[in-house]
Amino acid sequence: MATVSEALSSAYNELMGRVREIVVFQSAVSVLHWDMETYMPPRGIVLRSQQLSLLSRIGHRMITSPEIGKLLQRIMEHPEYDRLDEVQRRNVYLVKKHYDEQTKLPEKLVAETAKQQAITTEIWKKAKAAKNYAVFKPELEKLVELRKEAAEILMEVKKTATPYDALIDIFEPKTTSEEIAKTFDELKKGLIAILEKCQTAPRQPDVTVLKRRVPIEVQRRISVSLAEFIGYDTKSSKAGGRIDETEHPFTTGYYDDVRITTHYYEDNPFSSIFSVLHEGGHALYEQNLNPEWIYQPVGTACSSGFHESQSRFVENIVGRSREFWTYYFPILNELTGNAFSNVQLDQLVHAVNCVRPSKIRVEADEVTYCLHIIIRFEIEQDLFAGKVAVAELPEVWNQKYAEYLGVKIENDSEGVMQDTHWASGLYGYFPSYALGNVYSGQILARLEKDLPDWKTQLAKGKFHHVKKWLTKNIYMYGNLYDPIDLLKKITGEGINVKHYLAYLDKKYSELYGY
Amino acid sequence: MATVSEALSSAYNELMGRVREIVVFQSAVSVLHWDMETYMPPRGIVLRSQQLSLLSRIGHRMITSPEIGKLLQRIMEHPEYDRLDEVQRRNVYLVKKHYDEQTKLPEKLVAETAKQQAITTEIWKKAKAAKNYAVFKPELEKLVELRKEAAEILMEVKKTATPYDALIDIFEPKTTSEEIAKTFDELKKGLIAILEKCQTAPRQPDVTVLKRRVPIEVQRRISVSLAEFIGYDTKSSKAGGRIDETEHPFTTGYYDDVRITTHYYEDNPFSSIFSVLHEGGHALYEQNLNPEWIYQPVGTACSSGFHESQSRFVENIVGRSREFWTYYFPILNELTGNAFSNVQLDQLVHAVNCVRPSKIRVEADEVTYCLHIIIRFEIEQDLFAGKVAVAELPEVWNQKYAEYLGVKIENDSEGVMQDTHWASGLYGYFPSYALGNVYSGQILARLEKDLPDWKTQLAKGKFHHVKKWLTKNIYMYGNLYDPIDLLKKITGEGINVKHYLAYLDKKYSELYGY
Repeated sequence: MATVSEALSSAYNELMGRVREIVVFQSAVSVLHWDMETYMPPRGIVLRSQQLSLLSRIGHRMITSPEIGKLLQRIMEHPEYDRLDEVQRRNVYLVKKHYDEQTKLPEKLVAETAKQQAITTEIWKKAKAAKNYAVFKPELEKLVELRKEAAEILMEVKKTATPYDALIDIFEPKTTSEEIAKTFDELKKGLIAILEKCQTAPRQPDVTVLKRRVPIEVQRRISVSLAEFIGYDTKSSKAGGRIDETEHPFTTGYYDDVRITTHYYEDNPFSSIFSVLHEGGHALYEQNLNPEWIYQPVGTACSSGFHESQSRFVENIVGRSREFWTYYFPILNELTGNAFSNVQLDQLVHAVNCVRPSKIRVEADEVTYCLHIIIRFEIEQDLFAGKVAVAELPEVWNQKYAEYLGVKIENDSEGVMQDTHWASGLYGYFPSYALGNVYSGQILARLEKDLPDWKTQLAKGKFHHVKKWLTKNIYMYGNLYDPIDLLKKITGEGINVKHYLAYLDKKYSELYGY
Repeated sequence: MATVSEALSSAYNELMGRVREIVVFQSAVSVLHWDMETYMPPRGIVLRSQQLSLLSRIGHRMITSPEIGKLLQRIMEHPEYDRLDEVQRRNVYLVKKHYDEQTKLPEKLVAETAKQQAITTEIWKKAKAAKNYAVFKPELEKLVELRKEAAEILMEVKKTATPYDALIDIFEPKTTSEEIAKTFDELKKGLIAILEKCQTAPRQPDVTVLKRRVPIEVQRRISVSLAEFIGYDTKSSKAGGRIDETEHPFTTGYYDDVRITTHYYEDNPFSSIFSVLHEGGHALYEQNLNPEWIYQPVGTACSSGFHESQSRFVENIVGRSREFWTYYFPILNELTGNAFSNVQLDQLVHAVNCVRPSKIRVEADEVTYCLHIIIRFEIEQDLFAGKVAVAELPEVWNQKYAEYLGVKIENDSEGVMQDTHWASGLYGYFPSYALGNVYSGQILARLEKDLPDWKTQLAKGKFHHVKKWLTKNIYMYGNLYDPIDLLKKITGEGINVKHYLAYLDKKYSELYGY
């Protein structure tokens, strides 16, 4: 900043000071969300809704402060604006984008949405436990209406083609539903081809080995060892993370306080194993952002899709590889008191990569996973276009599951109520999961060029070099680029489903022998 | 409010709306404090300090908003002010008092103090673990200086005799260090007389029975059963509480979300038993405040001393009585797999009431407990009068422990660093503990008139009637009166140490046979 005038640098610094406060404030709010999902006494929900509603109003006021508008104007209209460096200009761009979005949303709408999100999430838990969509429906309707209202406003600001596109842009900037539909179309074809080859292959996995009972206490120790393996510290006196238990696993936090959650099932220990690897992938991203950019807009992850690319990379490309299990299977056996001593490595690797159409997204295999996402994407598109009503969601959901995946949904807890996203107001988020898979295939192709022996190292229990590569090539870039530009920076090309499909085809042809 | 003019009632309602926001905001901040002590990853402390500092500044701005000043003026100068009812006038009084105090404290001082409190607490944990006061000292010095600065300002506002009196007034309104000194003087004499009788009595307890090992997992179940016994729900789907583990036990929260913590020692199960009863007493108070007054200043506890009277009542007057153990001992035996099967009830009751001068306040018996407090009170007086420096605290502390209690402090972790209070900026709080004991004696005398068979019921496992009496006579009054007035309301007299001394003398003469 030595080369720009005092007026410009002081305006920029003042803006960054305000942003810093907003970031710190929001990190505090995220602790309240975490607590609500983990340890809050049930009766605390009413007070918590009020807290979140109030904090959301205060946060909104901070973000939409006219002072920020004035500073942005002073900076962007300054004749020396172009002499700010790339990082500074990106910070200004991101603040401006967020400011424009938020100043258009009425404070009342923001507060009501925050409150309704808390209520709907709580009702969702009860309705899911009771397998009763009717209990969930009225609160979900209110939340959808609030999000529709916001989407209409954001569409104007962002100049997107549809309200739904405006929501997608929150999670995957500059990505349109039209492009997504095109990408998903190609992806769907490729996946169905692989799925059919797997289904007709003579070599089929024995998944019964996955259902051995492992006490929850032991599973907790497995979680810690997995976290340690990928380099996410949850136990030492310098730990910057922790693992708790929630209905639906998630990651929250920032730099030195990044927390993941998992869900343990005594008769399905691999559920938590892959949840921990998945959330651990998210956690690595957050913990290894450029420390020089802490509290700045550039010091956040690139997009939800990029976040998912990292969680899916660690969960699947690493965690379901033969090389990972070559190393980790003996450790698992030791931790479980030889619960798997009569299981062969081949048997296990094939079992954790069993391809089989199923009802639950988070338990889906790599081949069918994106089909779950495509269903959600299509439903969200119709919901926000007014073509389907909240009351009809279970019916539409069940139809699509029958049609795309050939599975029959018995009740809404394993159907439309399986995920927390819609209950917590996250519409437009789901596409990022599938995009993340596509990115992860492209990232893998690049990684293999740079670190050709990474799998040999992995089989020896060494993940350090991969983590370092991901840090250097992805995490450290933070939010300096939009997702499509970061993708080009890393891989030299735009979005391309071929790499992900090629990765799957190679892997599954070896496993299934097709 | 039907009888007052529109202008007055709208000003009052607007004031209450603002207060409601402040109360909700502060309840959110207390979750961050709770998290910091329980589950926050160690590295999260830097971010947490920044969060607390920012939130403290925002909270301070809310409390000191000129709008509140204007509303107070409009209300208090209104010709119909006297026609507000007692609760309304008390609300206005409490807002005014807090507003006057807070508007005089510079925002910078408030923010710095919040930040320093977080840092000093964190250093205290490390210094205590390392038995190293030198590590703690520089951060404690900074915090004491900040509190001295605040005390000087508050002395002006509150017109107290000394800066230290201004701090006491925060916790025990309208109570002066001079009055406390007088009360403590009488108390000290009475306690020393009882102590001497106990020490020279021929019948002495066998405390080895208290040191039986009970696994932490079992102790956790004991905690839940004790909470359930007193009527503090931590486990059901309608629970409004929970029990976690911290270095130093505490209670936090409000109405439907009230949390306690304890500390388990495998070879000292009674430590946690009495911590849970103590904190459970605090929790009952918070949970059973008048629900109609939620979010109003009157809808908070009367004073720290009254809070302590409730925790000490449940811990000692109930929890260390023969009647309680008549009921609970068989349950304890069952929960521990008969760890105490060869111990007689008499033996246990005497052991949990062993009178023996010791080093650690929270483990002290009822007779010596207040002597620990008197030491802290005297030190705080000298510290804030500039008669003793932070560097001299260990020396002064150790001298007084030798003199008053006849014990030799071996290291500062069992001495001046044993409590969290000074590390977290709580000066002027300690006297409330002893005042609470004195109040509890007076409350007991009244309870025995109203419920003469409460102990017979207790021996049968019935605590419900006592809880109901406490709710009706104490909890439901919230902060409608200053402590001295509430005391008069309940007992018909002002502060009087005789009841507490009489309770102790009767109990210990029976136990020790003096």
